[in-house]
Amino acid sequence: MASNLPVDGERLWSSIMELAKIGPGIAGGSNRQTLTDADGEGRHLLRRWCEELGLAMSVDRVGNMVFTRPGADATLPPVAFGSHLDTQPTGGRFDGVLGVLAGLEVMRALADAGTVTRAPLMLINWTNEEGARFSPPMMGSGVAMGLFEEAEVLAKTDPAGAVFGAELRRIGWAGEADPAALQQLGAYFELHIEQGPLLETEGADVGIVTGASAQAWFEVTVTGAEAHAGNGMGLRRDALVAASQMIVAIEGIAHELGGNGTVGRVSVSPDSRNVVPGRVWFTVDLRHARATALAEMERQVRVRIGAIAGARRVSAGIVPFWSFPETPFDATLVGRLGEAAKARGYRFLEMPTGIGHDAVYVARRVPTAMIFCPCHGGLSHNEAESITPAWAEAGCKVLADAVLATAGVA
Amino acid sequence: MASNLPVDGERLWSSIMELAKIGPGIAGGSNRQTLTDADGEGRHLLRRWCEELGLAMSVDRVGNMVFTRPGADATLPPVAFGSHLDTQPTGGRFDGVLGVLAGLEVMRALADAGTVTRAPLMLINWTNEEGARFSPPMMGSGVAMGLFEEAEVLAKTDPAGAVFGAELRRIGWAGEADPAALQQLGAYFELHIEQGPLLETEGADVGIVTGASAQAWFEVTVTGAEAHAGNGMGLRRDALVAASQMIVAIEGIAHELGGNGTVGRVSVSPDSRNVVPGRVWFTVDLRHARATALAEMERQVRVRIGAIAGARRVSAGIVPFWSFPETPFDATLVGRLGEAAKARGYRFLEMPTGIGHDAVYVARRVPTAMIFCPCHGGLSHNEAESITPAWAEAGCKVLADAVLATAGVA
Repeated sequence: MASNLPVDGERLWSSIMELAKIGPGIAGGSNRQTLTDADGEGRHLLRRWCEELGLAMSVDRVGNMVFTRPGADATLPPVAFGSHLDTQPTGGRFDGVLGVLAGLEVMRALADAGTVTRAPLMLINWTNEEGARFSPPMMGSGVAMGLFEEAEVLAKTDPAGAVFGAELRRIGWAGEADPAALQQLGAYFELHIEQGPLLETEGADVGIVTGASAQAWFEVTVTGAEAHAGNGMGLRRDALVAASQMIVAIEGIAHELGGNGTVGRVSVSPDSRNVVPGRVWFTVDLRHARATALAEMERQVRVRIGAIAGARRVSAGIVPFWSFPETPFDATLVGRLGEAAKARGYRFLEMPTGIGHDAVYVARRVPTAMIFCPCHGGLSHNEAESITPAWAEAGCKVLADAVLATAGVA
Repeated sequence: MASNLPVDGERLWSSIMELAKIGPGIAGGSNRQTLTDADGEGRHLLRRWCEELGLAMSVDRVGNMVFTRPGADATLPPVAFGSHLDTQPTGGRFDGVLGVLAGLEVMRALADAGTVTRAPLMLINWTNEEGARFSPPMMGSGVAMGLFEEAEVLAKTDPAGAVFGAELRRIGWAGEADPAALQQLGAYFELHIEQGPLLETEGADVGIVTGASAQAWFEVTVTGAEAHAGNGMGLRRDALVAASQMIVAIEGIAHELGGNGTVGRVSVSPDSRNVVPGRVWFTVDLRHARATALAEMERQVRVRIGAIAGARRVSAGIVPFWSFPETPFDATLVGRLGEAAKARGYRFLEMPTGIGHDAVYVARRVPTAMIFCPCHGGLSHNEAESITPAWAEAGCKVLADAVLATAGVA
């Protein structure tokens, strides 16, 4: 199933490096936050490259850019692929960019080969995937898939008070297309860096993403009794030692059930060197590829927190904060990515993504699958983020082959 | 060894309640911070009460108030007792006050009985024991015992910029006596509330304090690797789970070696719900009645921190912050307090103090011992601090008997 498409890894790499000149960071990465001048400039470069290929551009009302290559059968739903060009304030050169420019490379290779697909193809650059300047993340895909209200998104403000809709017009990328039209895609593929260390550690060339993990976030408040540190240990009701045992237990449960459990924030009260903490607040982020397993994780975490609190004569209150459903990707498309990787002789891993991506929102309406590219040390959202040209090329080739297999060749 | 001294528990209690009317708190406690108008007013009331007994007052250059009752033999070194009248901003009515007014009650009972002691007696109100307004605590006793420079203390400023020496003059309590004269005391006794729950829990009437614990305070910085919470557990180097294990281990070691171990402050970085913490900083406060045992505690804590860090592939840096030597009280005086309690039929516990007191500084130069009075729930530095009149009377009687036994009756 490996195609003969002349995907050019060097051309892909040099395009990535070219784009990275726009909105450079201060340490070798990128600062091309959404709807800044740099974002506008990056969009113009993408537009120029796509126009050179004769692709028709459409921009919707939240700024999502769509470049269409006609297929032989205009009645077939388009096969789309892409990612995002916006970055974190101290972002890397590959997060998002790889998926857009790999999509561009697929378009270029098709042009070089003169291949015509049966279904039309679309390359998409989604607006504001990062959510760094305007929260929440994945706004463009969220609006397109009907998950966010368009008017609400256009009214969002950044920390300086600038309004999303006004900034979109200011940089010249407020279009007229209806974002919801993208719900009619026949398929969507996204290549993205892993943002984790698993692929590199396992020596895999590509990751085939099977779906997005279900998530449950909550907050725990442990209340014991404040006491002077000069008092003996026997009678203490130390909220921090209790919370520490809970944090260790959460890790153990996540390990055992094959999910992720993270305590990311902790606040200790009264936060004094010589006072036994009377109260500790901490956050819990639980994730699992399967919603039923997530529910079991959460149940076990609650039981353990209750047991530790009871044994230590402290109380523990648990308040839900946010949750996200399990989002499996399309089995046919996932299978097709695996076949493509196998046919190319790549070592690949099947894995869920615990991280949000445009593809996760698109998957709510459109058959979707994702490809992960390894990244050094799992580093991302960091200017030092790095991948190898060989990894980028491998991901791009799997993308190209799966796109061709899905769209069909005329 | 129980004396016939007519100590009057009701008079003691009503004096405590009378003094509490000066600088009342907002929730039934006291706000009589050092060198405020309220502190000055409290000092005046004590002076009036002492003058009614014919006691001669001397005030030294840092404001320590000393009331002397002559003994039959003026060549004998004085036997002193007292505590402090200043409070925390939201302090209780008993912390410090109990010791001063119990000393006053001893003086009153002696006057009632017409008893003349062989050695002179001195009642002392130390300046700024709390350290809440001007840091550090125990300034008056620290200067008197030569542990702090008098000029430095006089130049200390409060958070509003007011200067210690100027405030002392403003409230009219800057005296001319040499604070160092108090190094010539023959003995010093202090009755103080326990500020911990042990005595109440054990059903004891009084505590006999054997000395002050040695203390070692340090800071630990655990450095792992930041990672997105969407990444799997296997490859994490979570600084917080490592720190949590260390915190649990510190408690265990303190328990096992009969000391105190407290982690009071924790700071997590980057402190984001969905980021595995890359760095955690926390404080450690270790205390033990015996310096050798403290050293062993610290050794074991360091070994365990190193072992946990190694097993979790994180690093742990330990930086000393402060230390305080073991300060045993005078064995003869401690024994005398125990005999007094026994003779009165009180249930008593011998215990170290892990908390700083004027007596701990005085003990560096003068034979010293302390009596603890139980307090409800161990609550202190809190307006809800409370004791019973019976506990106050018991402590006062043990103080009276030990003072008489030490000074001798003419």
